[in-house]
Amino acid sequence: MSLRIIATGGTFDKHYDELTGTLGFADSHLPAALARTRMTVEHALEQLPLLDSLDMQDADRQRVLAACQAASEKAIVIVHGTDTMKDTAAVLGAASLGKTIVLTGAMIPYEIANSDALFNLGFATGVAQVLPAGVYVAMNGRVFTWDNVTKNRAAGVFQPL
Amino acid sequence: MSLRIIATGGTFDKHYDELTGTLGFADSHLPAALARTRMTVEHALEQLPLLDSLDMQDADRQRVLAACQAASEKAIVIVHGTDTMKDTAAVLGAASLGKTIVLTGAMIPYEIANSDALFNLGFATGVAQVLPAGVYVAMNGRVFTWDNVTKNRAAGVFQPL
Amino acid sequence: MSLRIIATGGTFDKHYDELTGTLGFADSHLPAALARTRMTVEHALEQLPLLDSLDMQDADRQRVLAACQAASEKAIVIVHGTDTMKDTAAVLGAASLGKTIVLTGAMIPYEIANSDALFNLGFATGVAQVLPAGVYVAMNGRVFTWDNVTKNRAAGVFQPL
Amino acid sequence: MSLRIIATGGTFDKHYDELTGTLGFADSHLPAALARTRMTVEHALEQLPLLDSLDMQDADRQRVLAACQAASEKAIVIVHGTDTMKDTAAVLGAASLGKTIVLTGAMIPYEIANSDALFNLGFATGVAQVLPAGVYVAMNGRVFTWDNVTKNRAAGVFQPL
Repeated sequence: MSLRIIATGGTFDKHYDELTGTLGFADSHLPAALARTRMTVEHALEQLPLLDSLDMQDADRQRVLAACQAASEKAIVIVHGTDTMKDTAAVLGAASLGKTIVLTGAMIPYEIANSDALFNLGFATGVAQVLPAGVYVAMNGRVFTWDNVTKNRAAGVFQPL
Repeated sequence: MSLRIIATGGTFDKHYDELTGTLGFADSHLPAALARTRMTVEHALEQLPLLDSLDMQDADRQRVLAACQAASEKAIVIVHGTDTMKDTAAVLGAASLGKTIVLTGAMIPYEIANSDALFNLGFATGVAQVLPAGVYVAMNGRVFTWDNVTKNRAAGVFQPL
Repeated sequence: MSLRIIATGGTFDKHYDELTGTLGFADSHLPAALARTRMTVEHALEQLPLLDSLDMQDADRQRVLAACQAASEKAIVIVHGTDTMKDTAAVLGAASLGKTIVLTGAMIPYEIANSDALFNLGFATGVAQVLPAGVYVAMNGRVFTWDNVTKNRAAGVFQPL
Repeated sequence: MSLRIIATGGTFDKHYDELTGTLGFADSHLPAALARTRMTVEHALEQLPLLDSLDMQDADRQRVLAACQAASEKAIVIVHGTDTMKDTAAVLGAASLGKTIVLTGAMIPYEIANSDALFNLGFATGVAQVLPAGVYVAMNGRVFTWDNVTKNRAAGVFQPL
């Protein structure tokens, strides 16, 4: 088993900039988070441009698709913003890559108290090794197939259509 | 899908007692940890006596077995000390309960910096929903079957036999 | 010795709202922070409206002044936003209240990794008990008098004029 | 103003060793803690052997005294175990060094949730710059003179004699 983790930004990777007082992107938290997991499964981390998923354009999703296509691994975890996670999942799902691709993210940034980021990373890393080929969203401790998931923004939870 | 989480203690749930300056057990961290996950999968938390797994006797493992037998859920996560995790897994594995039972724990307590506890909880919670019936150990970002796992104490990692 | 802590908001007390993905104000972190200090000095916490200090108007500073005037304690710590901390300090300094008033805050919110909030609270709580009557700003591990301090926003540090 | 911080171990600096499952000493947390304070006051960190203060012998206290004597700074913060903090304070107090020396520590290690370490460091760093020459213990948000302080171990708080 070999695993690829692809960082694309999103709330998971938001960072507080103390000079501007705003949340944005700097270095990804994933190298530190992965070290903390003590994972012994062979894995590679690939960092794409870190974006708020509301700012993702078609070209950005195509870049994620290209990274999945190019990956030699059969199991892929994508750390992604929650707001358009299902849209990227749909692009990947339609491509039928024959790999197990699991998108996850966080409601609270990794560096902020009470964050779900590390739990979600663990959840996604686990199911990516076990699920059959396909494209999935893993949030709220649940697995959703790419074509039956939406974010309920008022409640802040993912749910089936 | 419905999930049972059984707390049995171990490093995951160790707590620093500031009056004695020692690590022991007080209230389980799992209620707080589970709230933090924002899990929407139906789940129940069952707390057994919290023990250092080096202190677990046969009767303690039988109590874990009884809890798994009594559970109405088909998917069970057991939070357990790492040192004798494989022994409890062996007791559960030999019982052939027809449920998916995943044991996990932590190398660093939940309340201490750089802990793997939340990652492991996420990992176990994910694979418990996806794996076929059987008894597994989930540590270091890997799934082990109950009859092919050991803790390498010198290295602090789980590995196959 | 008796101490009053007045919460007025600022970066110290910013909270991440997971539904909107923004930093704002909810409950103050100060009750939790003060419990964590294990302070045995008699102290009272007074919460004024929590504001970003860039949004503070004259009326808001007058409310802080009124709270200081009304306080029975001779030692007061004010948790305040950094951007206009010196302006509120100037209002308080000009009033010559005969009390030891120390303004502090944080560059990183209390709930975000690597925050200076708890250090600054400790620093301010200490010097407020020891300094003679007057109005001071305590940031970056230094004490400044109210009429000789400015925030260097580019560097993110406080310094004398 | 120039400040010396002397690390001698104690609960503040305890570290969880994941291979042995015990709390002991490794690298001091103080370099990271000091970076986090964003202190601009000139300061030097001096690390002595890190000890549980229950293990401190006369020779260890003499080494602390020698470090204070050798320091060019007039303000010194000593991070020390709580159990014999008053004993080291007594050695330093009797030496009448003409410097402001403040001993502090923590009830919960810096790396464990809910720690008072950073607050105490801030408190001590503040009062060390303001108090007249003498030897003090700063714990529980209070300043004690070296000859009128004891740790109430049952309650876990410092108090006057």
